[in-house]
Amino acid sequence: MGSRMASHLAKNNVKLTVYNRTKTDTEAFNNKSVLVADSLKDAVKDADIVFSMLSTPEAVEEVFFGKEKTLKAMKKNAIWVDCSTVNPSFSIKAFQEAKLHNIRFLDAPVAGSKPQAQNAELAFFVGGEKEILAEVEPYLNMMGKKVLAIGETGKGASFKMLVNIMLAQSMLIFSEAVLLGDKMGISKDFLLDILPNLVVSAPFTKFKAETIKNDNYDVQFPLEWMYKDLHLATLTAYEKNQPLYLANLTKELYAEANKNGMGRLDFSAIFKYLEKTE
Amino acid sequence: MGSRMASHLAKNNVKLTVYNRTKTDTEAFNNKSVLVADSLKDAVKDADIVFSMLSTPEAVEEVFFGKEKTLKAMKKNAIWVDCSTVNPSFSIKAFQEAKLHNIRFLDAPVAGSKPQAQNAELAFFVGGEKEILAEVEPYLNMMGKKVLAIGETGKGASFKMLVNIMLAQSMLIFSEAVLLGDKMGISKDFLLDILPNLVVSAPFTKFKAETIKNDNYDVQFPLEWMYKDLHLATLTAYEKNQPLYLANLTKELYAEANKNGMGRLDFSAIFKYLEKTE
Amino acid sequence: MGSRMASHLAKNNVKLTVYNRTKTDTEAFNNKSVLVADSLKDAVKDADIVFSMLSTPEAVEEVFFGKEKTLKAMKKNAIWVDCSTVNPSFSIKAFQEAKLHNIRFLDAPVAGSKPQAQNAELAFFVGGEKEILAEVEPYLNMMGKKVLAIGETGKGASFKMLVNIMLAQSMLIFSEAVLLGDKMGISKDFLLDILPNLVVSAPFTKFKAETIKNDNYDVQFPLEWMYKDLHLATLTAYEKNQPLYLANLTKELYAEANKNGMGRLDFSAIFKYLEKTE
Amino acid sequence: MGSRMASHLAKNNVKLTVYNRTKTDTEAFNNKSVLVADSLKDAVKDADIVFSMLSTPEAVEEVFFGKEKTLKAMKKNAIWVDCSTVNPSFSIKAFQEAKLHNIRFLDAPVAGSKPQAQNAELAFFVGGEKEILAEVEPYLNMMGKKVLAIGETGKGASFKMLVNIMLAQSMLIFSEAVLLGDKMGISKDFLLDILPNLVVSAPFTKFKAETIKNDNYDVQFPLEWMYKDLHLATLTAYEKNQPLYLANLTKELYAEANKNGMGRLDFSAIFKYLEKTE
Repeated sequence: MGSRMASHLAKNNVKLTVYNRTKTDTEAFNNKSVLVADSLKDAVKDADIVFSMLSTPEAVEEVFFGKEKTLKAMKKNAIWVDCSTVNPSFSIKAFQEAKLHNIRFLDAPVAGSKPQAQNAELAFFVGGEKEILAEVEPYLNMMGKKVLAIGETGKGASFKMLVNIMLAQSMLIFSEAVLLGDKMGISKDFLLDILPNLVVSAPFTKFKAETIKNDNYDVQFPLEWMYKDLHLATLTAYEKNQPLYLANLTKELYAEANKNGMGRLDFSAIFKYLEKTE
Repeated sequence: MGSRMASHLAKNNVKLTVYNRTKTDTEAFNNKSVLVADSLKDAVKDADIVFSMLSTPEAVEEVFFGKEKTLKAMKKNAIWVDCSTVNPSFSIKAFQEAKLHNIRFLDAPVAGSKPQAQNAELAFFVGGEKEILAEVEPYLNMMGKKVLAIGETGKGASFKMLVNIMLAQSMLIFSEAVLLGDKMGISKDFLLDILPNLVVSAPFTKFKAETIKNDNYDVQFPLEWMYKDLHLATLTAYEKNQPLYLANLTKELYAEANKNGMGRLDFSAIFKYLEKTE
Repeated sequence: MGSRMASHLAKNNVKLTVYNRTKTDTEAFNNKSVLVADSLKDAVKDADIVFSMLSTPEAVEEVFFGKEKTLKAMKKNAIWVDCSTVNPSFSIKAFQEAKLHNIRFLDAPVAGSKPQAQNAELAFFVGGEKEILAEVEPYLNMMGKKVLAIGETGKGASFKMLVNIMLAQSMLIFSEAVLLGDKMGISKDFLLDILPNLVVSAPFTKFKAETIKNDNYDVQFPLEWMYKDLHLATLTAYEKNQPLYLANLTKELYAEANKNGMGRLDFSAIFKYLEKTE
Repeated sequence: MGSRMASHLAKNNVKLTVYNRTKTDTEAFNNKSVLVADSLKDAVKDADIVFSMLSTPEAVEEVFFGKEKTLKAMKKNAIWVDCSTVNPSFSIKAFQEAKLHNIRFLDAPVAGSKPQAQNAELAFFVGGEKEILAEVEPYLNMMGKKVLAIGETGKGASFKMLVNIMLAQSMLIFSEAVLLGDKMGISKDFLLDILPNLVVSAPFTKFKAETIKNDNYDVQFPLEWMYKDLHLATLTAYEKNQPLYLANLTKELYAEANKNGMGRLDFSAIFKYLEKTE
């Protein structure tokens, strides 16, 4: 994701330094007017804005205020924009850690996976001060097609959480409908062609229906991360004392698929899991 | 529904006879070149094609081959197009009864409720022979914008069942997401504006979000019928030995809303039910 | 079941005629003072009381007032005691059919499976008139250890339905607890020994825990019938407009086990199903 | 709970010092040969064994190694027996903190609530070294009737978690059965009398059925704590990658009851919640 996002900044001639633990992912940038840093410290020390895209809250903590202390290496008053998907209370913690180092913070998780990143079609859900967002927005617009200011710090992460559980559940509803339809004697291909285009189906199922037809579950967004996001949402629902019936049941079905070795496939493999149980 | 559908046939100068048990619903037709029949028998006796739109399988049975025996009054080789939402095995029964009277049959339930009927934007899901559909299709196109030939008799009803349970479940997922978002401190109006336009939301939620904002649950499709359709789907899933996790849980939540007196409101009142439990 | 029950009547020197479609099951009676009838008609024509124990409502219907018309062969004012597990509305139908032939009726389904039948430890849940029960009760006491008068016709079947869904659900709760405990590092054998003896566990799990320890799922009560009973209960709940959350979810998990080929094993194989999914 | 447990030690002439934040709970001990300490430090400084019974992991942490640092005040090599209900990973943390102060540790949560504590009928589920348990067991036997050595540190807490989720789920299954039975026309009092005595029902429901009959939901074990325990169990299930279908759905129903203001009633009020929704 990160390299795809960075490439759009490069195309727009933004002065840019990139860093990734795995060097191969940043090699492509050597031929462009982009600096490839050798260390986290080098990557951030002169930056006005630092974008991070990491896989878990634990990874973000390790890099910015755990073992690696990247926050300490940043310029005072610089802006840290965390695009990782984390839970809202973690974003608030990151904001507080940033403040201790006089760093300004935005949580800006994205909707979309690799293809959307490739095509600059991400949507950014932003939490934090409007003034900070105003400085960052031009760059977000280079990497995505929509920037939504959701509210104060943590609200970007909150909104992303809603979007992801809807994704998980819509995928499951769609899968159960196709499989029941098949049992009722309607051809699976017909169902995969027609259902996603009806107003009762989430539009993203159009793309998933195509890959399902080809029995292709190459990962766009891994099932094990979807399971984690469902888990984080049910934690938040507990903290807020809000029942969340369908997301909890959905979580258990992803748990079962994960336990059956599908965690590293795309989350649409929930279809494959439900289909195969016979 | 029926009167709205008939009005489009009238506009297209189709030679038309209408009948409704409640006379007030057909009064509007007196000013047009439309015959308003005094009895079921009069309504159908000269018709080449008879369209029916009734609320339950029981009502269809009563009118066509139960107490009323309308099938007997129809011309030999006429076509009966049943647009009511029924379960697939009932459609097959209706087809067999029709055959006994030399009447040809199509099951053609619709997607869409009153506004779509008003604007000729219904979609028809048709089960039955292609040759029969060819004779009927011009009229379906006057009343709707899409005609899908799903397969043999009963497949129209089968497909409609899938569409309705997706409707019920998508409405519930959306409601739970809005309510959790609200608890996380994101404004409910913001959520109702933004979520329906994302690719993770079924597009029909755009319209429901508007009515929810106005606390308007005037019935388009009654919650108690949605509960019934979920029930019929779980019956079918049992007959087919197909697990259907989310639809079963969804059914119980509509059951609860129905038990709480919301059965005659629009099915989007599942939002109101979940919201009010505090 | 039936032969085990009849053997207790024989032991008590009750004048008895037995009949089973499969002759081998009644051969054992040839050496006793028991008549083995060649036909249904011969079995019932002189009886004051007829006990039936069949597998499904459909089988009961076929034998008594469908193809076989056994009711017609019975003496006027005789008593028919149906011990089969059926849904309440079927019992009422059976009662009405019996009435047409001047036959008195009790629904008297049992708690317990083969071992309880063998040891005269069944419990009878009886629906119907108290006067009729008074005539029948001595014989029920020979075959079981408890006779519960639940109410009018159909109430025996209603009560049995409750007992069976509690059985299905308690088995599932127990299974999930053992499997989670195992994952937490507590030995499975320890859990199977200790949990069933605590006040939080349904006592029948003691016996199931023993068979589970031996990976023995020989059928006492088949999983596919448990699935059917859960289905009948959710039908009844729908008719009564009563939400039934856990039984519906439990039904889907038995559906999954059934779909995975475990229908003819004992219903405790739900443990095996949940255990094996990895 | 704590005062009831301590009273049994006092009756057995154990040399005893008691402490409670709320002084009124320990007043009764002034007339006995029991020391009532003025501070935590005074309570523990000379003790060979310290028993704690607190409401949450947070409270245990605060008292023993947070704000209050009670561990520091204890004698080297003394034993701390924590009877509170906490999650397994917290017990391991408590064990490690104790070790830093050369304090030996057992997790020993109990089955049973106030009446069982009153009558010395608790069951203790113990995690930790066998040698330590040998020193403590005589005192546990004064306060309870059963001591189960489950395994190493944390296993007592793990086992308690299983027991509590079975309690929550059995209560719910029982409630749904009674309410469906009532809708089917079987008297609620009959159901409350008979069902708990069948082998399909967890025996503790006998006591709950009595209080339900009197519409008495005085707290033995608060519903909001049961909700918390269900939550902790689903956390653990997530950590162990183990699906837990029924406990998750059960959690949401307790969430709904809690949201409806029943958190401080006994957890059997889940019956009242399900009953009232109409």
